[in-house]
Amino acid sequence: MATQEPPYVAIAQRKQAELAAAVPAEWRLPPHLVPAGMLSPAESITEGPKLYTRVNVIEIPRTCGILSPKELEITEKYHVRALVDEMTEGRLKAEEVVRAFCKRAAIANQLTRCLTEPLFDRALRRAQELDDHLRRTGRPFGPLHGLPVSVKDSFHIEGVDSSIGLSALAFKPARVNADLVNLLQSLGAIIIAKTNVPQTLATLDSCNHLFGRTLNPLNRQWTAGGSTGGEGALVAMHGSMVGFGTDIGGSIRVPAMCQGIYGFKPSNGRVPYGGQESGQLAGKGRIALQAVAGPLARSTGDISAVMGEIIRRSELFGEDCIPGYWPAPSVALSLYPQRKFTIGILKTDGLVTPLPPITRILNEVAQHLARTGVNVVDIPVPSALPKCQGVAGRLMGVDDGSSMLDLIESQGETLMPWLQGRMKRGKALTLDQLAQLQAQRAQIEKEMLKMWTLNGSHIRQVDAIVCPVAPHPVPELDRYNAVGYTSTFVLLDYPAATMPVRKLVESDLELGKTMDAPVLGSWDKANRKLWDEKTVDRRVYLESPLSVQVITPKQHDFELWQAMDMIDQAVQKGSGSPSAKL
Amino acid sequence: MATQEPPYVAIAQRKQAELAAAVPAEWRLPPHLVPAGMLSPAESITEGPKLYTRVNVIEIPRTCGILSPKELEITEKYHVRALVDEMTEGRLKAEEVVRAFCKRAAIANQLTRCLTEPLFDRALRRAQELDDHLRRTGRPFGPLHGLPVSVKDSFHIEGVDSSIGLSALAFKPARVNADLVNLLQSLGAIIIAKTNVPQTLATLDSCNHLFGRTLNPLNRQWTAGGSTGGEGALVAMHGSMVGFGTDIGGSIRVPAMCQGIYGFKPSNGRVPYGGQESGQLAGKGRIALQAVAGPLARSTGDISAVMGEIIRRSELFGEDCIPGYWPAPSVALSLYPQRKFTIGILKTDGLVTPLPPITRILNEVAQHLARTGVNVVDIPVPSALPKCQGVAGRLMGVDDGSSMLDLIESQGETLMPWLQGRMKRGKALTLDQLAQLQAQRAQIEKEMLKMWTLNGSHIRQVDAIVCPVAPHPVPELDRYNAVGYTSTFVLLDYPAATMPVRKLVESDLELGKTMDAPVLGSWDKANRKLWDEKTVDRRVYLESPLSVQVITPKQHDFELWQAMDMIDQAVQKGSGSPSAKL
Repeated sequence: MATQEPPYVAIAQRKQAELAAAVPAEWRLPPHLVPAGMLSPAESITEGPKLYTRVNVIEIPRTCGILSPKELEITEKYHVRALVDEMTEGRLKAEEVVRAFCKRAAIANQLTRCLTEPLFDRALRRAQELDDHLRRTGRPFGPLHGLPVSVKDSFHIEGVDSSIGLSALAFKPARVNADLVNLLQSLGAIIIAKTNVPQTLATLDSCNHLFGRTLNPLNRQWTAGGSTGGEGALVAMHGSMVGFGTDIGGSIRVPAMCQGIYGFKPSNGRVPYGGQESGQLAGKGRIALQAVAGPLARSTGDISAVMGEIIRRSELFGEDCIPGYWPAPSVALSLYPQRKFTIGILKTDGLVTPLPPITRILNEVAQHLARTGVNVVDIPVPSALPKCQGVAGRLMGVDDGSSMLDLIESQGETLMPWLQGRMKRGKALTLDQLAQLQAQRAQIEKEMLKMWTLNGSHIRQVDAIVCPVAPHPVPELDRYNAVGYTSTFVLLDYPAATMPVRKLVESDLELGKTMDAPVLGSWDKANRKLWDEKTVDRRVYLESPLSVQVITPKQHDFELWQAMDMIDQAVQKGSGSPSAKL
Repeated sequence: MATQEPPYVAIAQRKQAELAAAVPAEWRLPPHLVPAGMLSPAESITEGPKLYTRVNVIEIPRTCGILSPKELEITEKYHVRALVDEMTEGRLKAEEVVRAFCKRAAIANQLTRCLTEPLFDRALRRAQELDDHLRRTGRPFGPLHGLPVSVKDSFHIEGVDSSIGLSALAFKPARVNADLVNLLQSLGAIIIAKTNVPQTLATLDSCNHLFGRTLNPLNRQWTAGGSTGGEGALVAMHGSMVGFGTDIGGSIRVPAMCQGIYGFKPSNGRVPYGGQESGQLAGKGRIALQAVAGPLARSTGDISAVMGEIIRRSELFGEDCIPGYWPAPSVALSLYPQRKFTIGILKTDGLVTPLPPITRILNEVAQHLARTGVNVVDIPVPSALPKCQGVAGRLMGVDDGSSMLDLIESQGETLMPWLQGRMKRGKALTLDQLAQLQAQRAQIEKEMLKMWTLNGSHIRQVDAIVCPVAPHPVPELDRYNAVGYTSTFVLLDYPAATMPVRKLVESDLELGKTMDAPVLGSWDKANRKLWDEKTVDRRVYLESPLSVQVITPKQHDFELWQAMDMIDQAVQKGSGSPSAKL
């Protein structure tokens, strides 16, 4: 029997054993504390969608007894700035902070399969070095001195695998760091782990043969999202202060939405992207669609704390970076002081009508904002908007896909369930076809400029726009539908962030009992099935995070953050308390 | 006989007649004032290099008697800001300003063939509208109210041809304005003419069958440069306040150098590029190498006056633009106040050793700067630098070239002398080859980051770098050699400008009597021939402008301008008087 196993099976076993061995015995959950039905990595992929039931593990790190009270405080009480201050002012040692987060990350992994490469030993050694540095010099190593962070598996770290879940790439440690890794280290941040991704990086469920399926800590029935799914679960469980992912179709924003945290996809040129394993043709991003790196975190403040420091340095770390603007948050909000800060509400992309709870949450945000004195306007659907998803999709698939499929097939891997029937070898575009597609994109970008002026003038009227992240709540495993709401803003290179508003409640389930508006197309039809009581039990969505997406024109990243922060405050004020957040 | 003429001949005659007809009789130079040997348009192309002798026509507009004393004052006395102030404060009417420049442009054209589309009538009508506007509202139409400017023939203007010198494109007026044209008009600038370019836009001598060869007003034996050659001649003759061109291999900087004026190639994203005729595959810029639009002018102040206004508005005019930074010139010079402003001197690209006068001018600039207290450092040749010209060249030629050749051949046009044997139908790259080439470019960009830190750290040590524009002085017709010094900074997307330093004098001719350093390659060998007394009479270069190029890292456009202005002042101070400039 064993001789007939495809090669990937043994590689996966070896990789999983390596992962388990990196977790000290005293950080392991006793079996009785692990909720039933974890399934094996292999079963989590194929059987998970059928067998998983509602399980919420988010409180287990707090209740399991593995973390000391002080470690719980370290991992739960602080935002980025405050935690770094504790360390630089000597009230906490980097070593104890990093140990607390490593422990919590190890626990999170046992509950959600969020890690690929635990880097606990080297992170602890680095923390000691930083403590020594502070003691010796009296000065922090950098502005993020000692901050425990994590990165998506695709980022190269010298001496560590970047397998991206493919057995063909396992046990081939990277020889140089990704530019972002160098940058984070220069800031004093400490990478404690790399995190799980989908096979091919191109789906929204983070599962693969090496590490199995990442589970959503809020509910095992919901997808954890992808492709930065491991980060979504880890950050939501306080296993890392900030996670870094990449996004071409929504890969930062989707997992942030699924776990109810904050995800920030910057414009191109803000965060170094170089030095990653993609399994793709090198240079493809430059001729087709460029993915972007960015953070997932638990607050707007944490997003600003890391983005500000990265932007101030990035242009000398990554050849793809340009000088940027990210002043202290106290800077005046509007660049246009002659008028009120204006936020537009864009309710649909014109391709897939959002399900009723999504429309409701947009209306609620509009009301919260209007109450705080923001000028809120409705954005008519630009005629170019429905074209974006198609062009983005075609740009992602300009080549024949053989780089990735060769890797998968070389070790006898089967495709993940969602990819079956979808992932095929294609035919690369000719140079003329590619140029034509990019010319079409330029035309769309030009038409989209009018969304910001409202009246066809050349004067900006809208500072930021709120729209759906997805046309549905957090879906069940392998059922995410329509990435148009997220891929569109990679096509347009608009910075785009997602942020939680509230949980889905009983009354939301009553919305849209009859859905009789005409179906707009195949994506719209598939989307209806996620709400139609004949095809889904709506109660599965109960308590799922409801998020919104916020966008600004390209390179207005700091304004995007300002708008997020403003919305965050308006929502907290409108809903009575910060604890209404997830 | 006539029936055997290829179609382009009649089209060219019609076009030239149209051009002549746009010039009122009273703006025409009497024959005795036109220096002998202008040659016909057709002869200027083929016979010019053999027959042209040294003729300087730069003073003729002043001496010919066609312009009144007031018109001479209008066209000679002012810089951009001062001229606009005269108009907005009512001391000059836009109409009289525009008429003066139209007259001078008409004269310039009769001496240099710099125009393609005179727009005198519509410019005068527009000027009257602006005068009315000011009278009616008491306010200027925009910050460049009434400023006479000109644009390269490639920019579309509604109702006007964008033939780019190709008979196949003549008499096919554009239906919409280029984005830059709309932007300039919104600022109150008035476009008085479009200007001549090379056949294919891809050579450095601006000649084609429709309009003949643009002549250098300083000396008919020297090339006027290209591809924005018409602007170079027109702006040098004060026929326009500012000219707008485009640059992919040096097409703004080369004509600026040839005429001894200032040329500014911004980073991508500063000046809208959209809406131009290129004769190329649409979308090619996005997948290969992106050309950039920018100004040619007679002073650093004029560059700042237009760039500042453009940058403040461009992102809502062109989908390719991003928000930019261009404060008032009074802003503090260094972004790094903890150290002195540092300018590096880069003496060679490692491929073609500059001829002795070029090296001398770099040394002089270094000395002038050091005397004014700037920190001047030598920049070692980065190992990636010699790779740039080749990769830029391959990116320009990724397609099979058939779009352009089809246009040329369709009307029976022959290739211009320089293109013969160089311009051929090729084979388009495959998508994989293209991606590979772009990956190679990214690697070069990354290696080049070290040029700004000197020591391999991630801390910027060098604010700007001075280097040659070309490895030779202004060459004779059809003899420009090696665009590597200019195309490199399009490959790297560094903003790059050229500025005049002084004229070549007798003592420069004595330099390099023996040139015995080893030849670096074919480009270097060709370059030697431009100085070797066996192959050239060096005296042809006497009085030719000697310029330098200035660069900064990408998107540091304002810093580039700051460095230019600083060098300009240092040179003027060092050489005793502003009149040492050309």
